[in-house]
Amino acid sequence: MTGETVVCKLGGSVITEKDRSETLDAPALDAACDAIAGVLADDAIDRLVVVHGGGSFGHHHASAHGMTTTAGTHNVDAVMDVHGAMTTLNRFVLDRLHERNVPALPVHPLSVGARTGGPDGELTLPSEPAATLLAEGFVPVLHGDGVATASEGVTVISGDELVVELAADIDADRVGLCSTVPGVLDGDGDVVPRIDAFEDVADLLGASESTDVSGGMAAKVEELLGLGSPAFIFGPDDLEGFLRGDSPGTRIG
Amino acid sequence: MTGETVVCKLGGSVITEKDRSETLDAPALDAACDAIAGVLADDAIDRLVVVHGGGSFGHHHASAHGMTTTAGTHNVDAVMDVHGAMTTLNRFVLDRLHERNVPALPVHPLSVGARTGGPDGELTLPSEPAATLLAEGFVPVLHGDGVATASEGVTVISGDELVVELAADIDADRVGLCSTVPGVLDGDGDVVPRIDAFEDVADLLGASESTDVSGGMAAKVEELLGLGSPAFIFGPDDLEGFLRGDSPGTRIG
Repeated sequence: MTGETVVCKLGGSVITEKDRSETLDAPALDAACDAIAGVLADDAIDRLVVVHGGGSFGHHHASAHGMTTTAGTHNVDAVMDVHGAMTTLNRFVLDRLHERNVPALPVHPLSVGARTGGPDGELTLPSEPAATLLAEGFVPVLHGDGVATASEGVTVISGDELVVELAADIDADRVGLCSTVPGVLDGDGDVVPRIDAFEDVADLLGASESTDVSGGMAAKVEELLGLGSPAFIFGPDDLEGFLRGDSPGTRIG
Repeated sequence: MTGETVVCKLGGSVITEKDRSETLDAPALDAACDAIAGVLADDAIDRLVVVHGGGSFGHHHASAHGMTTTAGTHNVDAVMDVHGAMTTLNRFVLDRLHERNVPALPVHPLSVGARTGGPDGELTLPSEPAATLLAEGFVPVLHGDGVATASEGVTVISGDELVVELAADIDADRVGLCSTVPGVLDGDGDVVPRIDAFEDVADLLGASESTDVSGGMAAKVEELLGLGSPAFIFGPDDLEGFLRGDSPGTRIG
């Protein structure tokens, strides 16, 4: 045992086929669960929280209903479309972890979180359930979801938000984001090994061709820099290495 | 609109067939959902939280695994048996409410609650999710479940505990417990119309033949007396009346 607490996100585009509605990427999910189970069986980490994104389960429902992290809905069918698809994906993840003897238990953000309203709405995500499950030897598994939001009804909460919020609250020693890219890429498509300040990112990502991707990545990097514990962005092949203590992909902070 | 906030529990033995494993009492559940939908459609109450018990879905799994509100388990299969059965029952309740245009959304206690350990373990059950959903016009639906507990793993959290905890936190104006009996019964089997102090209960229930039932009922009454808002214990036929503002069964506090 290392005594470490690790928060690890499995990107939605890693574990699902993003272009086919509600379709798992079963081999990729199996490989990720193999890595997690192997590392836990070896006691290579002590406490693990898993967060997974929505991929083809959450995103198209949210998009069809005009839901984002700031724009919500009061339509209960819309909320159930997103939440129902995400709990289905969550159950697939849990089942595969249970098959490998990982003591995984679900923590659904719609049940535990809430946001105040307005453009600067603050997220409340009490960490007692995840922290207590962790201390008792379970592996809490959270996921992108809907979240009750003042004035907006229910908005989207992303896996990235969950990672940042939880990692700070439970004093995570290391944070990992397993994505489809091997790290933060510079203008030449090479992995940036380390980012220590937001200025670095702005320079690096400013050179990127896709503003969407760079905008998303820049915001993610900014939040991860605020964590106080190192975060790593890496591809699926580096998941096991990260869990065993390597520093793959891009180290942030 | 009355501006009232009401917390109403549907007893597990009301909505399920308690002697047949994982079997709904579909006519009883339909009738309860009809009452709720009708009252909300008439704007007879403004904000409603529904809590349901476990009945034949939760109890036999908990009992088979030796789980109680104080004795827990670290076996993930045991937790999933209880939680899985309860989320199945919760989905049945939600589906029937949705069919009647009630904007019901699930709040799973395993995701939001935690207990400290020991015989005086304190329950933490953050109310922001339910309170924000309520304020946005949704009907949060909670249920008996497992809950992470220090030193014990996962213990049982009962519908009654949820009612007492939530009603206080969200400043409920009235609390209803729809059970299979028409109220608290005295030694002659008659409904006691009002209980204002715990001494009354001890006298009344001391005369009852079944110590199990009276013990459970006495503890329930004691907790309800501490609420600060009136609580009513009544049978299924009185559910609609309660929701419309009547004072059926036994009034406590």
